[in-house]
Amino acid sequence: MIRPRSVAVIGASDDATRIGGRPIAYMTNQGFAGAILPVNPNRATVQGLPAFASVSALTQVPDVAIVAVPGEAAVQAVADLGAKGCRAAIVFTAGFAEVDEAGAAMQDRLVAAARQHGMRILGPNCLGLFNAAVGFYPMFSTSFEQGWPIRGNIGIASQSGAYGTHLFATSRARGLGTTVCVTTGNESDVSLGEVIGWMAQAPEVEVICAYAEGIRESARFTAALDLARRNRKPIVMMKVGRSELGGHAAKSHTASIAGDDAVTDAVLREFGVVRASTTEQMLDIAYAASRRIYPAKNTLGVITVSGGAGVLISDAAESVGLPMPEMPQAAQDKLRSLISFSAPRNPVDCTAQAVNQTEMFEHFLETTAEAGGYESMLVFLTQTGGSTTMAPKLRPYLKQAREKFADRLWVLSVIASADKVKGYEEDGYIVFEDPTRAVNAIAAMGSFGAAFAAAGEREEIVLPEVQLPATTPTEAEGKRILAEAGVPAVPEKACASVEEAVAAAEAFGYPVVAKILSPDILHKSEIGGVILDLADAAAVREAHATLLARAAERAPGARIEGVLIAKQIKGAVEMALGIARDPVFGPVAMVGLGGVFIEILKDVSFRRCPFGEAEAEQMIRSLKGFPLLDGARGRPKADVAALASALAALSRFAAGAGDRLAGVDVNPLLVLPQGQGAFAADAVIGVGDSH
Amino acid sequence: MIRPRSVAVIGASDDATRIGGRPIAYMTNQGFAGAILPVNPNRATVQGLPAFASVSALTQVPDVAIVAVPGEAAVQAVADLGAKGCRAAIVFTAGFAEVDEAGAAMQDRLVAAARQHGMRILGPNCLGLFNAAVGFYPMFSTSFEQGWPIRGNIGIASQSGAYGTHLFATSRARGLGTTVCVTTGNESDVSLGEVIGWMAQAPEVEVICAYAEGIRESARFTAALDLARRNRKPIVMMKVGRSELGGHAAKSHTASIAGDDAVTDAVLREFGVVRASTTEQMLDIAYAASRRIYPAKNTLGVITVSGGAGVLISDAAESVGLPMPEMPQAAQDKLRSLISFSAPRNPVDCTAQAVNQTEMFEHFLETTAEAGGYESMLVFLTQTGGSTTMAPKLRPYLKQAREKFADRLWVLSVIASADKVKGYEEDGYIVFEDPTRAVNAIAAMGSFGAAFAAAGEREEIVLPEVQLPATTPTEAEGKRILAEAGVPAVPEKACASVEEAVAAAEAFGYPVVAKILSPDILHKSEIGGVILDLADAAAVREAHATLLARAAERAPGARIEGVLIAKQIKGAVEMALGIARDPVFGPVAMVGLGGVFIEILKDVSFRRCPFGEAEAEQMIRSLKGFPLLDGARGRPKADVAALASALAALSRFAAGAGDRLAGVDVNPLLVLPQGQGAFAADAVIGVGDSH
Repeated sequence: MIRPRSVAVIGASDDATRIGGRPIAYMTNQGFAGAILPVNPNRATVQGLPAFASVSALTQVPDVAIVAVPGEAAVQAVADLGAKGCRAAIVFTAGFAEVDEAGAAMQDRLVAAARQHGMRILGPNCLGLFNAAVGFYPMFSTSFEQGWPIRGNIGIASQSGAYGTHLFATSRARGLGTTVCVTTGNESDVSLGEVIGWMAQAPEVEVICAYAEGIRESARFTAALDLARRNRKPIVMMKVGRSELGGHAAKSHTASIAGDDAVTDAVLREFGVVRASTTEQMLDIAYAASRRIYPAKNTLGVITVSGGAGVLISDAAESVGLPMPEMPQAAQDKLRSLISFSAPRNPVDCTAQAVNQTEMFEHFLETTAEAGGYESMLVFLTQTGGSTTMAPKLRPYLKQAREKFADRLWVLSVIASADKVKGYEEDGYIVFEDPTRAVNAIAAMGSFGAAFAAAGEREEIVLPEVQLPATTPTEAEGKRILAEAGVPAVPEKACASVEEAVAAAEAFGYPVVAKILSPDILHKSEIGGVILDLADAAAVREAHATLLARAAERAPGARIEGVLIAKQIKGAVEMALGIARDPVFGPVAMVGLGGVFIEILKDVSFRRCPFGEAEAEQMIRSLKGFPLLDGARGRPKADVAALASALAALSRFAAGAGDRLAGVDVNPLLVLPQGQGAFAADAVIGVGDSH
Repeated sequence: MIRPRSVAVIGASDDATRIGGRPIAYMTNQGFAGAILPVNPNRATVQGLPAFASVSALTQVPDVAIVAVPGEAAVQAVADLGAKGCRAAIVFTAGFAEVDEAGAAMQDRLVAAARQHGMRILGPNCLGLFNAAVGFYPMFSTSFEQGWPIRGNIGIASQSGAYGTHLFATSRARGLGTTVCVTTGNESDVSLGEVIGWMAQAPEVEVICAYAEGIRESARFTAALDLARRNRKPIVMMKVGRSELGGHAAKSHTASIAGDDAVTDAVLREFGVVRASTTEQMLDIAYAASRRIYPAKNTLGVITVSGGAGVLISDAAESVGLPMPEMPQAAQDKLRSLISFSAPRNPVDCTAQAVNQTEMFEHFLETTAEAGGYESMLVFLTQTGGSTTMAPKLRPYLKQAREKFADRLWVLSVIASADKVKGYEEDGYIVFEDPTRAVNAIAAMGSFGAAFAAAGEREEIVLPEVQLPATTPTEAEGKRILAEAGVPAVPEKACASVEEAVAAAEAFGYPVVAKILSPDILHKSEIGGVILDLADAAAVREAHATLLARAAERAPGARIEGVLIAKQIKGAVEMALGIARDPVFGPVAMVGLGGVFIEILKDVSFRRCPFGEAEAEQMIRSLKGFPLLDGARGRPKADVAALASALAALSRFAAGAGDRLAGVDVNPLLVLPQGQGAFAADAVIGVGDSH
């Protein structure tokens, strides 16, 4: 579909400005080497090419067909093409699932017609694609009026045609090479994930820009992200619809199922995809990535002619978490001996003197790169780098430094004419006018580098065999199931009588907690079904009576199985763990600190199930409230290892449990000081429809 | 200094590339209408102008002098100029306070020499300034090699010379008009605040771009911000050094006192200054502001040819808090009747059809503006707006819509050639290629509008007469002082004996809290000096003994005055209020939620003292944890009015107390449900050196 030897155009037009005419005009203009086979019942030739009256009249089976005829005629064309033996169609036609129910039904017929013949469909309601490497332009965008794609190693994969070509046009205006662009429209068959997967193995593409409104096929999608990572092809993705407003617009725009944004975000992070929130950011990152240097342990060395800019750059680096280690003292002393006013700590402020005495500049550049050992180097020269008098003097030193330290990522921040910028780029520099944008792009290269380096490190995860009960279990049963799966519970006992309750409390030691025990009451605290701080047998007796009375009054129909007595744990950090079933990505685990952190601040971390202890610990450490587990406010450090073990075990349980597991809430999970463990104090397992 | 009729150049050079030569060459080239008076003891003429052998040899008193001679010669030149009657000098010379102690001493002599004659100094160690309106170029930057400033209404005020000219050069590259640029260097006399104040009243400047590393003169600075706001001149400021790294670089770069960034941030917000974190952001905002439309109640209407871009724009608007109200249903129905595929909710997706049938485009534009009533309108046309075939057809409708709704802020997102962009700008549009940058700039215009509208609304604040004790008072005395000032305290009593303590507890009702009472123990909890939950007389007796024993053991030298008994309040939200003395801005009030919100999340709000209840409530509502006061998690709503009243009262107290007040900590302040008040449960007032 993307590199064919022949293409039929169903609905071919002699008018090069019509939808059915544009692709032919583009391919003729750009020298597509394969056969172009126009199909038009009313003309002998189309744009000078011999035309065929119908699909069946075609004298050869095309590798791919463009379908540009309206409504049912498109469905018929696909059926005819399939019968003819064609294996791929790019369907421009609109009026399908994006419009209404009738359109959705027509789309189902379109897909059925294609499936019958093992044929693949791009679209319908798509703008098409282009592959400039072979002059293949099955796309009806007008944006080629303003210029053809620049050849280069960036590929664009977009669900939105308008946005995909906006990205292409913006790239071209910036001089970025985008050889391949594929827009997927309604995704009745070929999905964004499949396109990314193609790019992940295609030699034409080394850097992938993707635009998504909603992910459809999670397995293909994650496999594509994984393949791209293993092939060291960075993906920068814009996934819109993260706001409430945006979410609404996304639904009215395409027939897409938008997964929960936090989950998508977690999946993208899992595979080292960098998420862009603006076109500019996306192209900045793609531009920097096109140089293909991805520092795995990124550090930044900065040489600047302006102390003020040095401060600005330091602020920017800190805000994206890019370390700027200090220069070794000896190197600082050496540079200060060259220019006494310089501030060579990092940022290395070489002052205007270094650019006036250019041999000084050489020393500053190379000493900083060598002694600092930075994986990324940013040289801020502002207008000096564009100056007609200064630039020719500085450029040889810049070139020489980059060649000497060729494994580093070299970035220049200058204000210069397009041809001067081109010169620096030819010398191997990435050039940004704005230093903050430079810093952001450098940080993204480090993210890619770290993700590529970690690609091989994933541990093998063995899923447990999980036997879920037929319906949602009681709390006690739920905790027993989870304990077996590796999420230990607080010592507790289900007690059918008040005497059993007192005996259990005496066995555990006071204080204890008493909770009502019923398969029909899932959220006990809402009916006052939990009583804390029971300090002696009398208190246990009183609590037992109170709980039964409250249950009778506030949950009259509920089956009551007794009262649960649990050891009350003091001095623990309260966490919440959970499993939710994402409509796209399946079971997803969540961890957060209890109380305000979850409820007010939404301070939680997500990850697809299953995962290992190392990933679980990463999730825990990414929480804003993590200092509370790490000894803040004079507390002992909490048993993070036990917490990570419980979280990873929960993720394996969820992955092993299958589709009948609706969700799990472990809240609170009580985390004791280091070495003392973490215990579920409450747990709800939702099974099947009962949740 | 900025609009002089004559300028002397001390250290004038015949070489137009030398520091003492450049300003003369620039002014000659740009037709400075005043007298240029070179001073050079070795030459009869300098760059063709008659030269003077010394300052005393000058035949007229210059309005201003440029000083470009080294070290002590600069000090002497300033003394000579003062004696001659000159009232202003721009000192390029470096080697003063930015270098070392000796330099600082020399700078003191420079300032003293000027003060003696009532002379003002810009610099030393400054790059100078320019005022293109009169061809005045006392600046030795090389950046004019690449072009002269474009005339326009943006003024640049910068502490850093290198960054100031970087900003100027970037503006010029973007086609933005910056008529005036002033760099302040070491600020031995003229400060950034004074420059902003000049711009706030100067007809040359309507939009102010400022760059700061540290604020020196808070009174001048805030007066300048206030004047700019009253004159409806927006300020966009980059204040660097907010990170730890950045903070370090700022210190090594200039001899500046960096105030606490959170405080500066609060001051900027107070006056409606928009803070930029990148050059690009700064210039985007300045560019949009140069149109001088500042919507006071900003709402955004979006017309887009791409649904995907509509989603992107909605996400961006939500993330900057820019509302996008839905179109009225009748207007939506009308637009949908024109193009059935359109999605006219807002974003209004008019689809490609509207730009193909351009009369449709007219309907969509004007109906959205009229029926939606949006103060800001963003039209996303991407490459269609730059298309040779489409742009000429669309432009008349765009122009007509803007003229019909001339009070709105009209913004266009297109990919187009420079001349096409210029055309749209001539029609009254602000043009951005990137839609996210457009949204950010629109949001900033709304911030300015709201600040300008609120400028007249400030209530008069009457400061109380505060009698501070000679040294830091006890907790009880501190709370009495604050209660008098309007911050009520929890019912409590200082008790000299255990019997008094029991009597007080019986009077308040249990439970009560007991605290050690000593002028020498400021942080009681650190020595275990607070005991909670005393439920009866026996518990009070035991606590009394425990506290005295702990004090004797853990704070052996402390004077013990007894024990404080306070009513223990339950069900309150714990807040922390405080006063800190900022080295630049004086007393600053802080409010935050107690516990993790302050300690882990740094979730606090600052404001300069004094302020009224309305501002106090704004501070409280800006907290991330505010939902906890507003009824989250099933709690009753807290008495925010009482909290705001206490905070405002504390700010008046701090402002009235004068310099001897070192700080105040009210922690916790217990806020009860609505109507029940807020009470300080603990308070520390630091007085003079004792804190």
